[in-house]
Amino acid sequence: MTQPPQNAPLQNDTFLRALRREPVPHTPVWLMRQAGRYLPEYRATRAKAGSFLAMAKNPELACEVTLQPLDRYPLDAAILFSDILTVPDAMGLGLYFAEGEGPKFERTVRTDADVAKLAVPDMETELRYVMDAVRVIRRELADRVPLIGFSGSPWTLACYMVEGGGSDDFARIKAMAVEAPQRLHAILRVVTDAVIAYLDAQHLAGAQALQVFDTWGGVLSPHLYREFSLRYLVEIAQRLPRGEGESTAPLILFGKGNGPYLEELAASGAEALGVDWTVSLGEARRRTGGRVALQGNLDPTTLYASPSAIRAEAVRALDDYAVANGGSRDGHVFNLGHGLSPGMDPAHVGALIEAVHAHSRR
Amino acid sequence: MTQPPQNAPLQNDTFLRALRREPVPHTPVWLMRQAGRYLPEYRATRAKAGSFLAMAKNPELACEVTLQPLDRYPLDAAILFSDILTVPDAMGLGLYFAEGEGPKFERTVRTDADVAKLAVPDMETELRYVMDAVRVIRRELADRVPLIGFSGSPWTLACYMVEGGGSDDFARIKAMAVEAPQRLHAILRVVTDAVIAYLDAQHLAGAQALQVFDTWGGVLSPHLYREFSLRYLVEIAQRLPRGEGESTAPLILFGKGNGPYLEELAASGAEALGVDWTVSLGEARRRTGGRVALQGNLDPTTLYASPSAIRAEAVRALDDYAVANGGSRDGHVFNLGHGLSPGMDPAHVGALIEAVHAHSRR
Repeated sequence: MTQPPQNAPLQNDTFLRALRREPVPHTPVWLMRQAGRYLPEYRATRAKAGSFLAMAKNPELACEVTLQPLDRYPLDAAILFSDILTVPDAMGLGLYFAEGEGPKFERTVRTDADVAKLAVPDMETELRYVMDAVRVIRRELADRVPLIGFSGSPWTLACYMVEGGGSDDFARIKAMAVEAPQRLHAILRVVTDAVIAYLDAQHLAGAQALQVFDTWGGVLSPHLYREFSLRYLVEIAQRLPRGEGESTAPLILFGKGNGPYLEELAASGAEALGVDWTVSLGEARRRTGGRVALQGNLDPTTLYASPSAIRAEAVRALDDYAVANGGSRDGHVFNLGHGLSPGMDPAHVGALIEAVHAHSRR
Repeated sequence: MTQPPQNAPLQNDTFLRALRREPVPHTPVWLMRQAGRYLPEYRATRAKAGSFLAMAKNPELACEVTLQPLDRYPLDAAILFSDILTVPDAMGLGLYFAEGEGPKFERTVRTDADVAKLAVPDMETELRYVMDAVRVIRRELADRVPLIGFSGSPWTLACYMVEGGGSDDFARIKAMAVEAPQRLHAILRVVTDAVIAYLDAQHLAGAQALQVFDTWGGVLSPHLYREFSLRYLVEIAQRLPRGEGESTAPLILFGKGNGPYLEELAASGAEALGVDWTVSLGEARRRTGGRVALQGNLDPTTLYASPSAIRAEAVRALDDYAVANGGSRDGHVFNLGHGLSPGMDPAHVGALIEAVHAHSRR
């Protein structure tokens, strides 16, 4: 397949219009990790699947959990249920989840010999389960709202590949960055090729927007961020085909701690930037000058507060953007600054979504 | 005592000169958590004391570990060995350390009734062990280098007081910030009074510079940082007496994640700002315009790399500052962007200190 499926008109294209900075009837909203453990129906599907990975690797179950938050809330976009580590898993590193811990790899990438073994996986064989999930979700979603595909950023994937899992301090990859930068670049080059092929394949399978999660770029000093994270984000923005006309899939670069680099990210060629809650949307808008759409950025922890406090903070974020955007809400996709957490109350999530729509409706 | 002890001339006053932005023979260096578990002699003293708190509350043992890194390395300043949570402990919250976990409090501060019980502790009774440690250290240090006293920032102390210990997401205090801001301000007001009294008492006991650690300010959204963290840092900078003439103690405001707020912090009245590694020293220097000295900011994880990589990164940080400072190294205190960790190699720490002195020597 070399062309994405023909798009029927979307019942709700607010999200895509906002990413194109076109006028919208309300500010669209979706939430990172909107399909997740805070929902009892998600926990039921996960119990049925037996494990997180079994669920993520089964297209029907991945579709089921992708649609759950859409059935509960008037969200303006769906996001593929998957894991950011599918690509290194398909490179042969052996992804697994130890009980009560984060993701881990059976094999790490630390030596030149480890690096030499890395190759871009075939998207329609080794990662077919992801593309099948995209196809099943598109069919079941039936053009209610657009579907977002995604990938981890090269730097973020490399963090897990070198460390062998999550890390408090990223000691191994940071040491590699200053001791053996060429080895780290060799890893990042093949991972970047894989990420581009992966996002392109998701687009061709039916994803209507694409997001890159640079979860760990913000742990770096500026000169190392620019060399090992930003450089490969720019490469993705430059090289990734997004299609033409109706089937164009906008690219969103999300990064935790990317606040200092918004000007550089806005010049990358990406259509939108996702920002965390440590930068104000007003400042982000002023610094990016309207060259990109902005997505974010309520502190997810706000969802532990009362619905009235959640509403007040959502209104503040919406208006902060609009004031800096000359009084217009165009070009803003509301989201959290990071993902939802298991202990959050689904009623509070509902209150947030309703507040965003109510306050931003024309 | 209402006057600090008369200062004999320091054998090495480079650190104080740098904080006053006066010419220095080399860039002074000290390292956050320089007295710590990475040193075998520290582990021996801690074993003798029986626990971290027993060591911190014994002025002779606190002095012993304070001086250990000075005996091993040519550091340009000593820092009081203590804990940032001594003040809330003295307010009656019951500080303890659960094995293998971080600090915890027996009692939390969450209700108005909890807040009503808070009072500024008496510095020469409830916190006498800290002031005695300062006096013993000054005597034993014998004016080799200056002694830094310190406190946690009001926001950072409140984080532990409300949460009852460390936290991944600071859910309780962040909910309080948006649901019951007046209650949080009531906590912060009494804690700010206590911090000012605590730093003043350390100065009068002999501390020659004072640092505030705002470890958790960077977890907040900008509007909440300004309301709950920055506001009280400014109050400290404005109200804290630092003495006059020879006995003036400069104030350093260190904050993890304070990069977005350097202009505002530079206008606070503090003599110096400590910054973490996510902002470059060159940018920090340009944005603060020479109004304050700057302290920092090597990524501590760099110490896991080879000595030659450590040297290269130290040189980069030194020169980044100097280039932005018109070619002069004045006004820079070299430090890490955060503290040393137990797994770091003392030989690598030595290589770093030597590299800073060698590269910056006139």
